[in-house]
Amino acid sequence: MTDFPDNWGRWGDTDQLGAVNLITDEARARGAAEARTGWTVSLARVTTPFPLTGGPMAQATAPTTAVQTIMQFTGFGAPAMGEVMVMTTHHPEVTHLDGLGHWVEGGRVYPGVDVADSSGPTGVRHGAADVYGNGILTRGVLLDLVPGGRLAPATAVTGNDLDEAAARAGIEVLPGDALTVRGGWDRATAEPPLPGMTASAVQWMHDKGISVYAGDVGDAMPPLPGEFPGALHRLGLGKLAIPLIDAPALEDLAATCERLDRWTFQFVLAAPRIAGTTGLPVNPLAVF
Amino acid sequence: MTDFPDNWGRWGDTDQLGAVNLITDEARARGAAEARTGWTVSLARVTTPFPLTGGPMAQATAPTTAVQTIMQFTGFGAPAMGEVMVMTTHHPEVTHLDGLGHWVEGGRVYPGVDVADSSGPTGVRHGAADVYGNGILTRGVLLDLVPGGRLAPATAVTGNDLDEAAARAGIEVLPGDALTVRGGWDRATAEPPLPGMTASAVQWMHDKGISVYAGDVGDAMPPLPGEFPGALHRLGLGKLAIPLIDAPALEDLAATCERLDRWTFQFVLAAPRIAGTTGLPVNPLAVF
Amino acid sequence: MTDFPDNWGRWGDTDQLGAVNLITDEARARGAAEARTGWTVSLARVTTPFPLTGGPMAQATAPTTAVQTIMQFTGFGAPAMGEVMVMTTHHPEVTHLDGLGHWVEGGRVYPGVDVADSSGPTGVRHGAADVYGNGILTRGVLLDLVPGGRLAPATAVTGNDLDEAAARAGIEVLPGDALTVRGGWDRATAEPPLPGMTASAVQWMHDKGISVYAGDVGDAMPPLPGEFPGALHRLGLGKLAIPLIDAPALEDLAATCERLDRWTFQFVLAAPRIAGTTGLPVNPLAVF
Amino acid sequence: MTDFPDNWGRWGDTDQLGAVNLITDEARARGAAEARTGWTVSLARVTTPFPLTGGPMAQATAPTTAVQTIMQFTGFGAPAMGEVMVMTTHHPEVTHLDGLGHWVEGGRVYPGVDVADSSGPTGVRHGAADVYGNGILTRGVLLDLVPGGRLAPATAVTGNDLDEAAARAGIEVLPGDALTVRGGWDRATAEPPLPGMTASAVQWMHDKGISVYAGDVGDAMPPLPGEFPGALHRLGLGKLAIPLIDAPALEDLAATCERLDRWTFQFVLAAPRIAGTTGLPVNPLAVF
Repeated sequence: MTDFPDNWGRWGDTDQLGAVNLITDEARARGAAEARTGWTVSLARVTTPFPLTGGPMAQATAPTTAVQTIMQFTGFGAPAMGEVMVMTTHHPEVTHLDGLGHWVEGGRVYPGVDVADSSGPTGVRHGAADVYGNGILTRGVLLDLVPGGRLAPATAVTGNDLDEAAARAGIEVLPGDALTVRGGWDRATAEPPLPGMTASAVQWMHDKGISVYAGDVGDAMPPLPGEFPGALHRLGLGKLAIPLIDAPALEDLAATCERLDRWTFQFVLAAPRIAGTTGLPVNPLAVF
Repeated sequence: MTDFPDNWGRWGDTDQLGAVNLITDEARARGAAEARTGWTVSLARVTTPFPLTGGPMAQATAPTTAVQTIMQFTGFGAPAMGEVMVMTTHHPEVTHLDGLGHWVEGGRVYPGVDVADSSGPTGVRHGAADVYGNGILTRGVLLDLVPGGRLAPATAVTGNDLDEAAARAGIEVLPGDALTVRGGWDRATAEPPLPGMTASAVQWMHDKGISVYAGDVGDAMPPLPGEFPGALHRLGLGKLAIPLIDAPALEDLAATCERLDRWTFQFVLAAPRIAGTTGLPVNPLAVF
Repeated sequence: MTDFPDNWGRWGDTDQLGAVNLITDEARARGAAEARTGWTVSLARVTTPFPLTGGPMAQATAPTTAVQTIMQFTGFGAPAMGEVMVMTTHHPEVTHLDGLGHWVEGGRVYPGVDVADSSGPTGVRHGAADVYGNGILTRGVLLDLVPGGRLAPATAVTGNDLDEAAARAGIEVLPGDALTVRGGWDRATAEPPLPGMTASAVQWMHDKGISVYAGDVGDAMPPLPGEFPGALHRLGLGKLAIPLIDAPALEDLAATCERLDRWTFQFVLAAPRIAGTTGLPVNPLAVF
Repeated sequence: MTDFPDNWGRWGDTDQLGAVNLITDEARARGAAEARTGWTVSLARVTTPFPLTGGPMAQATAPTTAVQTIMQFTGFGAPAMGEVMVMTTHHPEVTHLDGLGHWVEGGRVYPGVDVADSSGPTGVRHGAADVYGNGILTRGVLLDLVPGGRLAPATAVTGNDLDEAAARAGIEVLPGDALTVRGGWDRATAEPPLPGMTASAVQWMHDKGISVYAGDVGDAMPPLPGEFPGALHRLGLGKLAIPLIDAPALEDLAATCERLDRWTFQFVLAAPRIAGTTGLPVNPLAVF
């Protein structure tokens, strides 16, 4: 896919923000203006940890999950309870932010840094997820591909599909917007084949100037015949440097948009400020 | 301190939200209205992980910290980098939310649940931090006790001090507000004796109807002579059920408020939606 | 069971070795003399770790287990592979040594130390498993309760049963011997009800002067009607201070003894020298 | 070093034992015969864990180490204490076994398996440390290079040095022997430059038929001028497939040998039977 556009170099050779640079003062103010009642809706899945420890103090078998926790022994008669938490940052059961350093194309990460320079045994030096630690705020839009329903398995989502959903909602997608796309799938629990975004859909994001993507439609699994495999990660994250919110939950958001007949909102994202990782657990909010 | 007010029972016997119940529709809308430019300021410290692994692949000795990470071996020629993260949820180096189930008074947690019912070896059943998983949005106010400076060691902060700071800023604190208080201390790195909130300051929070507290002034360490020890945790978190943001970083916020001469903002908090823990890492934002 | 004998004080008020004190020079030399061909048989289960990380780099669901491992990213072109290992020390799937500090009776551990003095949030100060770090070597004996078979579920194993097995094997159990008992159960995978050792069997161990116990018959689960519940842990480990090898695998040992018609051997045990824990993974050997 | 001998293929194309194949029945019986009093001496360092958790329940800063542990909360009034343990298997502070799958030469591990076949993100499939899970028993010999002293920094240890030490002790090293070599260095705590084994010393091991190596002299750090760098790991472990005991402690052994004027003993090694790792913590014993 050598003719696909890319943003490598667009904001300099050392940039770490990627498409978030598209959030201009104007875009940001547009996002702020969407907060009216202040009512918040979470775009994150609930992740249920399992014990880090197994039997005899906990069940001997259990599904593994994104997060494991262990309650600490805090001493006899201690007034407080606490725990230690172990997390697989890119696990499909936890809503997380894919930083730009997560993805490697041809041995390099956006905007052309050798992966041996961006990542080492002890962490990430370029493109870590916490470069957005000061928060991302912009207007969010929801494109619901199948209101009240679920995409057919192995559906190839195209730019046209996104245009049609925007027309249905009566909204115009603008540069700097955070894009949420609902297909009705919970990728953490669904059985394949999963629907997926095509290169044409990622091209559409580029044309519109999307800054962040948070959709329950990700890359098809298995890859779709005749389509570029892994388009969202390889082209969207890798080439266009659009940070991805992986494994969001959009049912509450869709229900709220439907109820209010309002498909735009203040999108606000604030990952924990933990430095040097390729991914971080997040809870993006839609504010109405 | 048997005459100190408490909120146990105020919102029922099974409530898990505590003082966050004070965020009425009116308070929430007041918070939303504060978002104008959409500019965001983080209230979180940057936490630098250390390797979960020691030598020979990483340094053999290092300070421990709140978070440890390990880069995964993702296979030869793998296109993506990832990691596993281990976190001590209540470590002073990571900005975190103290859930109501964190604190135990007389063997019970708010609003009177036996700790053996609220916590078990495998996690928290009542008062977990993720009860706020749908997000908290309200108006935030900053009371800067020492603009540009730092409180003297072992200062006892009282309700009067808070009144004076509010007067200096020209603001009226209202029910449902999130309160941020700056004393100029980074508790994670500072040497004792640390300043601390007194029972009178916590009483003030109760009188004003504070919903969430995020201050760099916490409980004095060591306890202040003649003052109720651990007032913020024992009275504020335990009795009043005001969730605490522990270990915030407020210097950027204070600089922004000073520059804009504006001491109120949209406060928005969204912890990762990880169930069943007493604490969670957070990155509260102030939106201007 | 107030009339059950105990060893508290028998070797002083600060002793940490318990019944291992019964291995005299004579007993030790008796053990050494058993090594003839030098052929070794392991008494440990094979524990298969599962990934510490979940998907997408590993399976998204898996049974939990005693040990989790994660392959480290050791850098590009690194010449060596390595990993980090997480272990639940008392998990039934890993053969492990129960140190004397593991068991608490009436708030105290052998030989009468307050548990708040023996254990703290950061580890064990009295009765840690590594007090045997210099190795345990003595004569081992195998009592096979059901050669070639398996005890009926919920069997109550008594001192008489042990006497009969010894008579069948034609051996005399002597003071300082390490006792292995085979009932044909793999407690990690078996469905309850499990057979178990009774107080009479533990009394027998006391009478014979057993120094270490490694049997696939542990405490019955659920407890046996009319029998003292948890006799092996509460009386054997707690009162008599006989360190227990929990979750051994004795099928290979039994087959070897049968083949050689030889029911004694050199028993040798060397746990990793990791300080301050209540349990450690071990691989006891029988040397023929 | 293309002319250095190697054992790739010597015991077949799928062998996982390497030089341990040199322990014949004769060698094994020779080892068994060394056990006389049954007195055991550990060849392992004591590793002191640090808390997996940091403050506020444990110290906020501490040296990292090979092992971290966390005491579990086992419930209110629970009768037992337990913990979870996290271990870096190849950390210089923990005595460990380097399995043959640990070392990669030219993208392959002994005896020629592509590293992508031997190791994956979820563990080791060829050359794991637990292939020796049934125990290793053979005669051990101690060659003390500097009785009562310490090698000079950056000493290059040669085959001649080993011959001289054997002559001093009056022993003949035989095929299948486990070799322990003392130089008086604790590599975990010593400051570089460290002494090291040269290619000539590794050649000597090959000529003598050494089955296992456990020495406090490892590879020099930094590499010695004019010598093949990393000879012990690259030639001994990688080419000759001699499993290495990394980071042993030999002071007690040397003192015992000196006291008894006896430089041979029963060497017995039994790593925990945890499958699929490149390294395992061990506690080799010398039995006298």
